[in-house]
Amino acid sequence: MSILPKSIERLSFALATLPGIGPKTANRLTFYLLGRPVEELNQFGLALSELKANLTKCRRCQIVAETDPCNLCLEKGRNQRILVIVEEPLDVLAIEKTGFSGIYHVLGGQLSPINNISAADLTVKELLSRLATEPVEEVVLATDPSLEGEATALYLANAIYERQGAGQLSPTLEISRLAHGLPVGGDLEYADELTLSRALEGRRSYSAQN
Amino acid sequence: MSILPKSIERLSFALATLPGIGPKTANRLTFYLLGRPVEELNQFGLALSELKANLTKCRRCQIVAETDPCNLCLEKGRNQRILVIVEEPLDVLAIEKTGFSGIYHVLGGQLSPINNISAADLTVKELLSRLATEPVEEVVLATDPSLEGEATALYLANAIYERQGAGQLSPTLEISRLAHGLPVGGDLEYADELTLSRALEGRRSYSAQN
Repeated sequence: MSILPKSIERLSFALATLPGIGPKTANRLTFYLLGRPVEELNQFGLALSELKANLTKCRRCQIVAETDPCNLCLEKGRNQRILVIVEEPLDVLAIEKTGFSGIYHVLGGQLSPINNISAADLTVKELLSRLATEPVEEVVLATDPSLEGEATALYLANAIYERQGAGQLSPTLEISRLAHGLPVGGDLEYADELTLSRALEGRRSYSAQN
Repeated sequence: MSILPKSIERLSFALATLPGIGPKTANRLTFYLLGRPVEELNQFGLALSELKANLTKCRRCQIVAETDPCNLCLEKGRNQRILVIVEEPLDVLAIEKTGFSGIYHVLGGQLSPINNISAADLTVKELLSRLATEPVEEVVLATDPSLEGEATALYLANAIYERQGAGQLSPTLEISRLAHGLPVGGDLEYADELTLSRALEGRRSYSAQN
């Protein structure tokens, strides 16, 4: 016999499918929502069911957007010479917060043989064709600093070098990678060896940094 | 300028209102949901907007339910002589999992002067009238083992004693409280002083426990 009403169990079950939310948290969230006004629940429900309505992909930078081209690609005054390659749309958000104002390309993920994700599943083809036609002078590989992210960056760098060798891409196109080092506000004592050794390798003249 | 589409921001904002979910987690959950099929999102949305449809309160035990009286109160074979007083419906769920099969009373919260919650905001009146009319022989105070939970238990015990003194409740009605002690599977070394001292006070004959 089920003790809780079906509507409570249904919502709890749906919440428990979300990553990082277990059955107990789902139950607690459901009871929290039970205490909210019906209008708020309706709006929340509408936000869910209409999440994918009117969404498209920008054919240029591949970000999820309401228009194609997207707002970012349409924005004037952006530096079209520096292109940042990221894995996910949220990465664009994170980089925009730094005040950076170049252009982006969203890969849609990272190479991952375990999960059967190859270059064909990412927007690599679209990236290379952009590099051949747009006036980009530098690409910044801004994939995750994880094993898969590094592998993806390496793959992209090689793909670009190859096409530069074959004369398909400008030989002056530069490739860079986000710096590794100590996170700001972090504690040196707790930094792992690899990060610390990268921070040493990448050390900069004190005057240049400030 | 907003970078993310409005539908994404709307859902992310709604998710961030949930307790324990910050803006970053909300963003991540939203992008996870973006990858789910539309039908699943619709069902999830429906579960939210219909959460409170067809819900009522059992007038006897005060639990949230689809019918009044609720399934638990209607169930035959339950021990009507032992009544467990809990704060929330989820507590009933937790106690049911132990295999206990008595009856319940849901207070709807705990006494909390800080949050301006007094006995009048809980279902204390309903509880006392049940005790006066139902054949209950023992009430188990199963409020949280927190400061507020203990205060609520103390308040209820006093209220019952008072009415027993005035002849309004049976003088043989017993009052008990859930045992304090070491959680099963816990580590004695990490137990706090208070828990450990309660566990010592409440020690039981080894033969009685097994």
